[in-house]
Amino acid sequence: MELVYRYIEEHQDMYVKWLQDLCQIPSVSTQNRGIQEASQMVADFLKQQGGCTEIIATTGHPVVYGHFFSGDKKTISFYNHYDVQPEDPIESWHCDPFAAEIHGDVLTARGSADNKGALMARICAIHAYQQVYGELPINVKFIVEGEEEKGSLNLPDFIEKHPDKVQADLCIWENGIIYSDKSIELKMGTKGILYIELAAKGANSDMHSLNAAIVENPAWRLVWALSTLKDQEEKVLIDKFYDRVLLISDDERKILESMDYPEEETLQRYGLNQFLLNLTGTPLKEKLIFQPTCNICGIYSGYSGEGSKTVLPSEARAKLDFRLVPDQDPEEIVQLLREHLDRHGFEDIEIFARKGTRAAKTDPGHPLVVKVMQAAEKVSGKPPQKVLMNPGSGPMYRLCQQFGIPTVGFGVGNSDSRKHAPNENIYVSDYIYGIKMVAAVIREFA
Amino acid sequence: MELVYRYIEEHQDMYVKWLQDLCQIPSVSTQNRGIQEASQMVADFLKQQGGCTEIIATTGHPVVYGHFFSGDKKTISFYNHYDVQPEDPIESWHCDPFAAEIHGDVLTARGSADNKGALMARICAIHAYQQVYGELPINVKFIVEGEEEKGSLNLPDFIEKHPDKVQADLCIWENGIIYSDKSIELKMGTKGILYIELAAKGANSDMHSLNAAIVENPAWRLVWALSTLKDQEEKVLIDKFYDRVLLISDDERKILESMDYPEEETLQRYGLNQFLLNLTGTPLKEKLIFQPTCNICGIYSGYSGEGSKTVLPSEARAKLDFRLVPDQDPEEIVQLLREHLDRHGFEDIEIFARKGTRAAKTDPGHPLVVKVMQAAEKVSGKPPQKVLMNPGSGPMYRLCQQFGIPTVGFGVGNSDSRKHAPNENIYVSDYIYGIKMVAAVIREFA
Repeated sequence: MELVYRYIEEHQDMYVKWLQDLCQIPSVSTQNRGIQEASQMVADFLKQQGGCTEIIATTGHPVVYGHFFSGDKKTISFYNHYDVQPEDPIESWHCDPFAAEIHGDVLTARGSADNKGALMARICAIHAYQQVYGELPINVKFIVEGEEEKGSLNLPDFIEKHPDKVQADLCIWENGIIYSDKSIELKMGTKGILYIELAAKGANSDMHSLNAAIVENPAWRLVWALSTLKDQEEKVLIDKFYDRVLLISDDERKILESMDYPEEETLQRYGLNQFLLNLTGTPLKEKLIFQPTCNICGIYSGYSGEGSKTVLPSEARAKLDFRLVPDQDPEEIVQLLREHLDRHGFEDIEIFARKGTRAAKTDPGHPLVVKVMQAAEKVSGKPPQKVLMNPGSGPMYRLCQQFGIPTVGFGVGNSDSRKHAPNENIYVSDYIYGIKMVAAVIREFA
Repeated sequence: MELVYRYIEEHQDMYVKWLQDLCQIPSVSTQNRGIQEASQMVADFLKQQGGCTEIIATTGHPVVYGHFFSGDKKTISFYNHYDVQPEDPIESWHCDPFAAEIHGDVLTARGSADNKGALMARICAIHAYQQVYGELPINVKFIVEGEEEKGSLNLPDFIEKHPDKVQADLCIWENGIIYSDKSIELKMGTKGILYIELAAKGANSDMHSLNAAIVENPAWRLVWALSTLKDQEEKVLIDKFYDRVLLISDDERKILESMDYPEEETLQRYGLNQFLLNLTGTPLKEKLIFQPTCNICGIYSGYSGEGSKTVLPSEARAKLDFRLVPDQDPEEIVQLLREHLDRHGFEDIEIFARKGTRAAKTDPGHPLVVKVMQAAEKVSGKPPQKVLMNPGSGPMYRLCQQFGIPTVGFGVGNSDSRKHAPNENIYVSDYIYGIKMVAAVIREFA
């Protein structure tokens, strides 16, 4: 493997340039920006490495599919996405979110950590491996979708129409963290997600706020409705919300306890005095990994500009995401939420729900998963950091778990990568290190 | 008076043009737009009618003061403002809010009803009266401020520094409505106002919403805090909030009962099924005129754009206005609110309060007020519509009631003028009619 590692080091400027090229495309899926350019560039990269590549249309954004076929061997698939979150709030960025500037060891760009860095590390590893050894020792598939940041709306349809393309012995999930001691995070599951919008409607136009004495204010309706959803102890108050939540096994608890979580670092970085409910240690990790959430992503009504405006708003809206755990069912949660609102007298509050995703977990003892762990230990000289479930979300259940495909995620982010936030970034050195990790996994499977 | 009325009719195109000129200046005080131009134009209009005119600087926007001195006679003052509300949301306007377009009898412009129409009607009446009779039979003062729409922040200082300029036997307040049967609304008081902003703060930047499991969300803090302020029966829950609210006298109740309120018309216009709490008749009017409010003017946090963004916001803010009634004290309310939030565990929620204004009421039996009523009846042939308190607000307490100056407000708006909302408008015919009303009041005082 030293030959491959050296090749990677010798060509790191080129590999960094490839990543910058992709990061410079503002492929914000919720705003339909840069989709065509980004999908084309990913397809071109795959083709250049010799993959059979297709850009497969969906009713939304296309899926880029690449296949490197080597014969009757094990198949691993890489799941990634070429879309990114919106860069808003733009004023909080230190530099242009799509310039992919490098200062020192830091590459700053929307999408660099989530997950263009991981995607390009995989493509670069294929390149380096082939340059050194001529051909790949396993079959490799790339499934690169363009709607992950808007809930993978059309991936289920893709999966249904192309069951052959989805089949694999192991799926490597989109991304993960490299810790400051160079140990590698391996994620063996992911929370599910349900994204909804609540809307309260009042008059057909904004009114002078003198009318607040006699006309209902939808902002109050929304506030009252929201306040019934969760109490200040962070307990979700929707009836039966927790009914399907699985208990943690003893094995899971052991891995959870051994999992590192950088408490002090996180508090300091985000200027926090404490975590929610003053949690710390294993209870904190348990809440992060195994508990569902009910989060306000956005709320807006009336006047939000400078200074004052005395207005009675005509509408109020909130965007919420629920991070789900096994075996919660997003469709059922929508139903429970509707019943909850009705029961509390909020029949007037409308729910606009996106199609959700269930959570997924992989058995950490699966032989192929163990191989990935071994590769990580070889690259870093340290045991990997096992995370049983990524507290973020993704379509892992649909793409893998429903077919019994084990899944491990790793990537090139760091614990200050600011995914979904201003100044998203990765370390260039982690990116290079991540390319080596992918090469090591390919080798381990040979 | 027929001579003056005819002169007004013959010169109505000119008077309308004058109003359009003023409406075309976007004098949005909360955004510091068009202030210099608007104050200069008002001063020019006053000078052209022969008034001794000054533009008096304050630490905020200047006050335009005009004085028409006729000798040892009664003095009436006109209180108006040259500033307007922001035009936001701009996309809901049928035409440019500052084009002052006229279609049929309707002039649409931000500020046309509140209160540039009333201001110009007064200036035009002075013009017409002098053109016909040579000189005014009374002393007239104009006090035209530029910060009414942001709470008249610097008017108290102006009043303190220029007590002579404020003195008058009667003050005509900024505006009012002309009903479809041409009866004239006379407002003999106004609610007070307190405008505050609440802020909840979390991490020092937005975070990926996966962190919602372990990091406090300021949007939830704000929602929970707001939900403690008012119950769904519209009762404000701040301790002692109602303690100073005066009971309604029998005389006031009689006037209240005789007051017209266009229930059906209002419901239809704003697409409402019912008023708050299904109120109707006298209880509805009582709530509108005599009850204080606690209204959400705006609430915002996190992502409000198209589609979804999974974010844990770093901050949440709400703008609230309280309409106050005699004898509530805005400074005391801020104190009560602070105590309320602290008592409910929301010490972390910050309050940013603007200087408030107390409510004001004038005795409807005051002899000079009766004269205005008589003028209104002469112009319209109908008894005026007496409103004991304007459910909107203004600095009437500071400018008049604290000095014992009786106050009556009337103007050129209509019940669909959409003040503070998109498509603010007046009828051109009401504007001309309003000029006549001002002339009739001057005559009545002669």
